[in-house]
Amino acid sequence: MPKGSVSLSVIRRLPRYHRFLRDLLAAGTVRISSGDLSAKMGLTASQIRQDLNCFGGFGQQGYGYNVKDLYEEIGRILGLDQTHRAILLGAGNLGRAIALHMDFALRGITLLGIFDSDPSLVGTQVGGMPVRDCAGLADFCAAHRPDIAILCIPKESANRTAAMLVRHGVRGFWNFSHYDLALDYEGIAVENVHLGDSLSTLCFRLKEAGRESESLVP
Amino acid sequence: MPKGSVSLSVIRRLPRYHRFLRDLLAAGTVRISSGDLSAKMGLTASQIRQDLNCFGGFGQQGYGYNVKDLYEEIGRILGLDQTHRAILLGAGNLGRAIALHMDFALRGITLLGIFDSDPSLVGTQVGGMPVRDCAGLADFCAAHRPDIAILCIPKESANRTAAMLVRHGVRGFWNFSHYDLALDYEGIAVENVHLGDSLSTLCFRLKEAGRESESLVP
Repeated sequence: MPKGSVSLSVIRRLPRYHRFLRDLLAAGTVRISSGDLSAKMGLTASQIRQDLNCFGGFGQQGYGYNVKDLYEEIGRILGLDQTHRAILLGAGNLGRAIALHMDFALRGITLLGIFDSDPSLVGTQVGGMPVRDCAGLADFCAAHRPDIAILCIPKESANRTAAMLVRHGVRGFWNFSHYDLALDYEGIAVENVHLGDSLSTLCFRLKEAGRESESLVP
Repeated sequence: MPKGSVSLSVIRRLPRYHRFLRDLLAAGTVRISSGDLSAKMGLTASQIRQDLNCFGGFGQQGYGYNVKDLYEEIGRILGLDQTHRAILLGAGNLGRAIALHMDFALRGITLLGIFDSDPSLVGTQVGGMPVRDCAGLADFCAAHRPDIAILCIPKESANRTAAMLVRHGVRGFWNFSHYDLALDYEGIAVENVHLGDSLSTLCFRLKEAGRESESLVP
């Protein structure tokens, strides 16, 4: 169990721990020292011990970490043992890729339906699932009670649609619209994903990397 | 110009400033106070002043920020005024979405070519561009000298392919494979994008948001 409040930067590292541990588990690794885990993850061993201590610590002196126990415990902390019901809005290129590419089941998420307002997309199939008309969204939510919405829609409609979804009980938003969704409701979680920001950061780092290697040349 | 070294957390906020300023510019806004910008961005005014001061500060007491100047200056800091030549590896769902969805030109990036090793994808079109056979990748790089590679390929081939690309002069990697690319070369920049980590973080925040609202109930 988390000891008091844990910083968001530690939380944001947990999915990465979970991912590395899943790979170790798949490779048949039973236990691992913080030193070996740190080498794999590119973190210091003390950083790893410090992060995991925030949640009560799972390592034993001289033994290291039991991979399966640690994987399952981090999954529980992340809430991946809970089940969720999701809808995806926007069946354009990005929405289709998200629907087809993501392993929702790994996180206890069932994708219930995909929606779009474009008549040329409504009725087409994405991964064996029909694209439904946004006109029926409110009724669908009332009947099926999704708690997560994945927004791959233009920014103009994201804010308006989100307010309606909150009224229908959606509590989590995974937002890919070019818009920082900020919802003034209690108990709502939003993750804004800006792929463009990541690409801009790469451009910055590329510029800086170039500068560093230039400075090595006399 | 950056004053000394600037923390990565400040750098990671710059693309977001740039995005908000682009919207303000498109809406015809000429100048903005740090107070108004903070309200829009959900940051404190002092956070904004502190971030922008890292780069020498652009605001004037009593005037605020000139939107166009600040937008252009942040763009220069990010290196978005430089030009890049990119290739995209992996024309599956995610690769196609990235190719079609991203505004590369906004960041001075030209997408030169899309590659896949799957014979059923080679020769198909993505946004008017043919998918090329990975067998010709090394020759293509030698002829066209891309400096950025976007990896939407399985993790098994990402590391091997990246090493070959570095030999051919690629210096920036935007990596979507389920794998933390870590390249032990000088002057190479890597941005790993893990959509699954973001979705796991949403699950955590949803669990915590639920806990908070439950604790409000007596």
